[in-house]
Amino acid sequence: MSDVRDQLRAEAAVRDGKDELAAKRKEFVLDETVYLDGNSLGALPANVPGRLAEVMTHEWGRLRIRSWDESGWWTAPERIGDRIAPLVGAAPGQIVVGDSTSVNVFKALVAAVRIAREPDSSSALSGGRDEIVVDATTFPTDGYIAESAARLTGCRLIPVAPADVPGVLGDRTAAVLLNHADYRTGRLHDLPGLTAAVHAAGALVVWDLCHTAGALPVGLDEHGVDLAVGCTYKYLNGGPGSPAYLYVREALQPRFDSPLPGWNSHAEPFGMRPGFEPADGALRGRVGTPDILSMLALEASLDAWDGVSIDAVRAKSLALTDFFLRCVGAYVPTGRVESLTPAAHAERGSQVALRCEGAGDVMKRLVEQGVVGDFRAPDVLRFGFTPLYVSFADAERAAHVLARTLA
Amino acid sequence: MSDVRDQLRAEAAVRDGKDELAAKRKEFVLDETVYLDGNSLGALPANVPGRLAEVMTHEWGRLRIRSWDESGWWTAPERIGDRIAPLVGAAPGQIVVGDSTSVNVFKALVAAVRIAREPDSSSALSGGRDEIVVDATTFPTDGYIAESAARLTGCRLIPVAPADVPGVLGDRTAAVLLNHADYRTGRLHDLPGLTAAVHAAGALVVWDLCHTAGALPVGLDEHGVDLAVGCTYKYLNGGPGSPAYLYVREALQPRFDSPLPGWNSHAEPFGMRPGFEPADGALRGRVGTPDILSMLALEASLDAWDGVSIDAVRAKSLALTDFFLRCVGAYVPTGRVESLTPAAHAERGSQVALRCEGAGDVMKRLVEQGVVGDFRAPDVLRFGFTPLYVSFADAERAAHVLARTLA
Repeated sequence: MSDVRDQLRAEAAVRDGKDELAAKRKEFVLDETVYLDGNSLGALPANVPGRLAEVMTHEWGRLRIRSWDESGWWTAPERIGDRIAPLVGAAPGQIVVGDSTSVNVFKALVAAVRIAREPDSSSALSGGRDEIVVDATTFPTDGYIAESAARLTGCRLIPVAPADVPGVLGDRTAAVLLNHADYRTGRLHDLPGLTAAVHAAGALVVWDLCHTAGALPVGLDEHGVDLAVGCTYKYLNGGPGSPAYLYVREALQPRFDSPLPGWNSHAEPFGMRPGFEPADGALRGRVGTPDILSMLALEASLDAWDGVSIDAVRAKSLALTDFFLRCVGAYVPTGRVESLTPAAHAERGSQVALRCEGAGDVMKRLVEQGVVGDFRAPDVLRFGFTPLYVSFADAERAAHVLARTLA
Repeated sequence: MSDVRDQLRAEAAVRDGKDELAAKRKEFVLDETVYLDGNSLGALPANVPGRLAEVMTHEWGRLRIRSWDESGWWTAPERIGDRIAPLVGAAPGQIVVGDSTSVNVFKALVAAVRIAREPDSSSALSGGRDEIVVDATTFPTDGYIAESAARLTGCRLIPVAPADVPGVLGDRTAAVLLNHADYRTGRLHDLPGLTAAVHAAGALVVWDLCHTAGALPVGLDEHGVDLAVGCTYKYLNGGPGSPAYLYVREALQPRFDSPLPGWNSHAEPFGMRPGFEPADGALRGRVGTPDILSMLALEASLDAWDGVSIDAVRAKSLALTDFFLRCVGAYVPTGRVESLTPAAHAERGSQVALRCEGAGDVMKRLVEQGVVGDFRAPDVLRFGFTPLYVSFADAERAAHVLARTLA
């Protein structure tokens, strides 16, 4: 194996030398660890502590209440939304940041059902559309929230594998909630094709972008997606539990009828009026007072994307996962691991999931040796590849340590 | 006026000298400003920037994903809830921190309606209880969210003044949402009496504590409150938009059926199971991934309460507002302002609201002169008194500057 390893290490060095994103690595706080868990919690961007110190000591500490206006706190949700927009293929004015992904799934699904049931809806059924279809392989919270949205809107919940979605769509379908990438296997779903299928049935689609935003082009506007949500603490590096976001397609905004109409989504929040009158545009997705410390940490973290092409990110992501799989194939004894991640690029996100006996213990030992991925029950090793800071040398070393651990 | 002023300044000095909470002031970042807007955004506790720097550089920057366990991130919502509990008269295990006040109002109201409608409920009506009563003088977001909760649960919303609540309660009442103090006038409502009235009608009560927690004793357990919510950025000084909290009385927890059942409220969050099974206890109020930076800033800010008796806080709060009103009476020409805040201690929160012609401009000029309160349309000057860091000298100076401005 030594010769093979020398070759792969040399190849990694050449690739890292040619990597146009390589310089980005120094914008993050990293150490000798091979960090392949950016699909769970992105590494710390080096500028964030300084920025947040300024927010605390100057904006909160000195200006205090004046900062809602003078420091731009009040408009942070839509301003930061516009920073995320180009990363997911959205024109400005369609994304607001705030709340958790779960809460945004709730807003999006209930609002989608309400739009699908409007009197001029295309369902011929009396009583209108009464089914919510959900990706049965989804991250569980989406399924739980979809069940709640169905219960509160009087819909039936239909969980199916994403590939089977077209087969269950029809006149009764109100909304469909899908994940762009499977959190467990890393499989990338066909966003353009499934969106078109949902629209052909006269329903609305909500995409969860947690595992793709910042890792590959999403093309929300291009593909006519209705609503989307995502977290910002994975490939967007916004910090632990940083605020999520909600995308509402511009054409749908006047019809977006939120189940969480807080004072921040009012047309005149400081009018303090008893009756609710929704704001125009994406602001309708806001709810309560925005969480400023976390939100401005996220805003600073997005500086890392300045000058970065998401196509270059995607190219590097695929090259990294290809290379990691080659190294695993070269180093790990046959039969010890099996990739659950599709080989076809069109079906792959930015992580590699390996089925492995005793995966929980194996991951513990990898972490002890400085290779950090994560374990998903019952038997999956997950390795996430964040193109802004993971190198080909990292990928090679991770495969080598894995092989040594399994030997 | 000069003699009167000398007397009141001397009195302020004596009172500040005897103030058992006076030493707390140095735990906050304050300057020459008289800051009477802690009922909108609490001042920065001096220990917060250092603690958050450690969270960013060590916990996020070095430990990264390991911090969910090793740094106690995962259990922060309930741990911090238990820090807030004694301030609102709650035994441990009944409060979780997270989300905004608006989102928590939604969880609490929908859950309250569901409990009130359980088959063994005390309503004799077929179809059960179908009315939500809401404080018509509430901060608007509570009213908007109550309207949404009513719509989604098939209830009718009945807005009434708090004093009129007993008159509208009956067999149809499912839940009642009330503010402990009126955000505009500072009037304190009768929490024990109204809670008892709601219970006598067989309904559940949800109290919004935004304007009282940290300013006076609430006694949630003592008075048998069912559910409560509150923000943490006013008298609790948690930071701009810091996470809110939800209290669910222990006896009700097994029946708490959340409309936002995220993966964080699952009995086994990392089981990643398709079916939702709620956790035991207050954890049912959690939803998505907790927002760690804001949450740990809040946790650090709560250190300021160590060794503080909430009865002492209340005593100082009343003494401050009394003294401020005396100074205003002594300095401000008759008829220029009118207090909307009740004179009776039992009906007063921790703010003084003065009706004043041209209040918007007056507040601007006060702020220019270093006295910071806020303006609420159309004609209200609000002055909040945070006993942990506002002095009697501050109260005197604010009244003096107000008088000078109106002269």
